Amino acid sequence: MKYNRIHNFNPGPAALPLPVLEQIRDEMLNIQGSGMSILEVSHRSKMFDGIINEAIDRTKRLLNLGDNFHVIFVQGGASFQFAMVPLNLSVEGKPVDYVNTGTWSTKAIKEARIQGKEVRIIASSEDENFSYIPKDVHEDGKAAYLHITSNNTIKGTQWAEFPDANGVPLVSDMSSDIMSRPFDVNPFGLIYAGAQKNIGPAGIAMVIIREDMLERIPEELPTMLKYSTYVENNSLANTPPCFAIYVINLVLKWLEESVGGLENMEKINRKKANMLYEVIDSSDFYRGTAQKESRSMMNITFRLPTEELEDLFVKEALKEGLGGLKGHRSVGGCRASIYNAVSLESVEALVGFMKEFERRHG
Amino acid sequence: MKYNRIHNFNPGPAALPLPVLEQIRDEMLNIQGSGMSILEVSHRSKMFDGIINEAIDRTKRLLNLGDNFHVIFVQGGASFQFAMVPLNLSVEGKPVDYVNTGTWSTKAIKEARIQGKEVRIIASSEDENFSYIPKDVHEDGKAAYLHITSNNTIKGTQWAEFPDANGVPLVSDMSSDIMSRPFDVNPFGLIYAGAQKNIGPAGIAMVIIREDMLERIPEELPTMLKYSTYVENNSLANTPPCFAIYVINLVLKWLEESVGGLENMEKINRKKANMLYEVIDSSDFYRGTAQKESRSMMNITFRLPTEELEDLFVKEALKEGLGGLKGHRSVGGCRASIYNAVSLESVEALVGFMKEFERRHG
Repeated sequence: MKYNRIHNFNPGPAALPLPVLEQIRDEMLNIQGSGMSILEVSHRSKMFDGIINEAIDRTKRLLNLGDNFHVIFVQGGASFQFAMVPLNLSVEGKPVDYVNTGTWSTKAIKEARIQGKEVRIIASSEDENFSYIPKDVHEDGKAAYLHITSNNTIKGTQWAEFPDANGVPLVSDMSSDIMSRPFDVNPFGLIYAGAQKNIGPAGIAMVIIREDMLERIPEELPTMLKYSTYVENNSLANTPPCFAIYVINLVLKWLEESVGGLENMEKINRKKANMLYEVIDSSDFYRGTAQKESRSMMNITFRLPTEELEDLFVKEALKEGLGGLKGHRSVGGCRASIYNAVSLESVEALVGFMKEFERRHG
Repeated sequence: MKYNRIHNFNPGPAALPLPVLEQIRDEMLNIQGSGMSILEVSHRSKMFDGIINEAIDRTKRLLNLGDNFHVIFVQGGASFQFAMVPLNLSVEGKPVDYVNTGTWSTKAIKEARIQGKEVRIIASSEDENFSYIPKDVHEDGKAAYLHITSNNTIKGTQWAEFPDANGVPLVSDMSSDIMSRPFDVNPFGLIYAGAQKNIGPAGIAMVIIREDMLERIPEELPTMLKYSTYVENNSLANTPPCFAIYVINLVLKWLEESVGGLENMEKINRKKANMLYEVIDSSDFYRGTAQKESRSMMNITFRLPTEELEDLFVKEALKEGLGGLKGHRSVGGCRASIYNAVSLESVEALVGFMKEFERRHG
């Protein structure tokens, strides 16, 4: 691989598009003829205004957002959003509803409970070790919001279609599949995504908030915990993570101009996932852990006959230049995270290695 | 200048050491032979553990921290700390004390008040437009903590010596002068610093917290708002801003190995500041805005005879490759921010320009 790079299947932080990394490198000492690094440029400069507004405009175009949606950037990652959502969007006298599809949903639920909110788990796949996405989600329409995790990195499941929220605003953690496919944003009151899987580096969350949600925000919250602070100041109330926003803009540019938008991205992602699931399904050696109809296009989780073989698989893969294939420490096994920036070429290399490994050890 | 770079006097984000930027560039595509960019490396990897622990160890050495101090990294910048400090460190039945030395202190005070804390302003320089650091700070010893802003970027003032807190833990926002000089950390219960002035890029705060402060943290706070979450998980409870921590480590390495520690850094900083104050004091054309005994070594604020001349000064300076000299939008005038990474060479260039500008327009 160019620059002796590996095929990177890390679950996050994860692979970034090579041309993005090359551009970051090329302008690290002097960006846009400013005589400064992007790390040294004022967040109040015209140049940075151009960068952040470009990132916002690209997001609006890619996701086809109406004027009633605001795109903001918040520090703290998705874990911080677990707390910020109930702080901002709960409504006196109404419960907050959650669907529990695994570790990340569980953490989001925990944070709502810490705040003393009346949390209802209206659906869960805990009964089968979170190996599927619940089909029967009955929202009675009485909740302040209905929270889901669109893709579950650890168990390798993903919502193929979002649930009917019966008029209640949907809220989703899309950290691991934002920008991986087109979808209708209109039922969503709020979407948040830690950037480090599909759209940029760690240390920032993209938040998309619908105008009507802003009315709910309690006046007495700390300034930096209110979504309205970010909306009113175009995410520049304080110094934002300028570099992260700059990288996000480059990734979105790549998505628009090189990939050609989310329809194309989804086709490529579907192709990549299918290639790996085909290897798994046509083999008795590899075993997928997610139920078929709930399988993720982003995180392909699988087991081998023994833990010893799994360790060997991860180790030998790395020797062949295939990195990041160890399953999450909480579940073991193997996992190939194939976010947007993971190329077909990398997936082909993994397919080849999996077949070869099975031939040798199967 | 190399790479057509300018002399960068930005107030923050601000200049970074050139060798640091060169190293970031050189390993952007492949760091430490990993085959990945630092932006693509797992925060749970051995490599990143090495980086974060190195940054912590360097901080402990540079500031001569005892074992009773923890170094953690929190997202959200200093503005987020304005809220986190009273949330974590206030004590039932005790007031929280603040010294008001300008815009940043005022914001910190506002956040404590939003939380309904009993805030006492025990000293202030508001009576003279924040142009000095109050000398008579009488802490009665009854407060949960005493908060100060060690350096005031907008008004160009800095605490030369920290106040006697009468046994109350000092808390300081050191965003704009951390690592610029040695000081005795022991009276401090907590120190926080947005990185984007003296130690790294925007999007992260370094927090130094004394062991005994941890006992105060309320159990029911949201997870990511508790300092204990960061202490217990070595700042890795969730995905941290890996790139920012990596850059901080490189800056601290430069401080230790190239500059030779904080004693040397202070000498250089004092020399740089003195060079500029000498131009100001030996002229009737330039006028310093801070009272002499309260002057900052980091932000040299000054006025010219008219606003028109100030605009011209900033404009012509930029043509000569001297950037970032405009005063803060709230006060006008001119300001040269000369944090650690601003070289003697840059300050010499500014001195030359100031003399030449006075000659032509004085």
